[in-house]
Amino acid sequence: MDSDPLLSNFYGVGFRLCPTPNAQLQLVLSEDRDIDLVELEKLCDAVGWSRRPLRRVRKALQHSLLRVGLWRHDPRVPRLVGFARCTGDGVLEATVWDVAVHPLYQGAGLGRQLMAYVLDRLRTMEVERVSLFADPDVVGFYASQGWELEPRQRRCAFWYSP
Amino acid sequence: MDSDPLLSNFYGVGFRLCPTPNAQLQLVLSEDRDIDLVELEKLCDAVGWSRRPLRRVRKALQHSLLRVGLWRHDPRVPRLVGFARCTGDGVLEATVWDVAVHPLYQGAGLGRQLMAYVLDRLRTMEVERVSLFADPDVVGFYASQGWELEPRQRRCAFWYSP
Repeated sequence: MDSDPLLSNFYGVGFRLCPTPNAQLQLVLSEDRDIDLVELEKLCDAVGWSRRPLRRVRKALQHSLLRVGLWRHDPRVPRLVGFARCTGDGVLEATVWDVAVHPLYQGAGLGRQLMAYVLDRLRTMEVERVSLFADPDVVGFYASQGWELEPRQRRCAFWYSP
Repeated sequence: MDSDPLLSNFYGVGFRLCPTPNAQLQLVLSEDRDIDLVELEKLCDAVGWSRRPLRRVRKALQHSLLRVGLWRHDPRVPRLVGFARCTGDGVLEATVWDVAVHPLYQGAGLGRQLMAYVLDRLRTMEVERVSLFADPDVVGFYASQGWELEPRQRRCAFWYSP
């Protein structure tokens, strides 16, 4: 299925189909298809994140190591229903940010498939270590996928620009 | 002092002198001077970090957002005695890695000056948020410099390449 020539026209050669219980639904992961910033903003609205200026989001995406979208396939207008991105040097370190699945599509294992796709891509780059900051409500989600929580009792720290 | 034309030949225009109690010691921070990989390896050895292949370190440094060295100035051979680097998109997120000060130069406030220099550079880029993973023995070091520890009870998680 992953070599479907039609889907690769939409999503590039690196796309991956997500199996779902609903056979009529085609959900596609890809790092190749461009992310529409207005669609991404709608997705972030839907998961309750605060808005950021589009020009800054555009620049941040351009300077990311990896941008992955999850689309509900529609030959007329594919709809962005999930997203994740990574920053990093692509060798020793990568950091995952902004993991989102639209609330209407949650509970079907898509977040897990999105993260598996992200890690597969980072593995291909031979990145040694991947890190992320997990909010309390998603700690279990990551722990169940083999992420080590606070190894060596490391603590996360943030500094916000004044 | 920061406009010393001699020092800028060595360290570039963005260098900063670190005040120290010892007037004979000139310690210079800079993001402009190239990091010698063999010197960096010696510094990492001195602080007890495990070695990594130089070609991978070279690539990681090339793909970093910021690389800052701290040198003990010597007109013949400046000596690298401190280091820090950041990855990130340079807009929304930056992450600090590999903060090191040579044990012989610790205890004089140089780590603090190194971090202040890093944050000044990130501020100039207008990065919104800076993150890091603090080992237990340096949590107090960062907390005393205005870093928020585990804000919103976020937890750090790592995934290591098999």
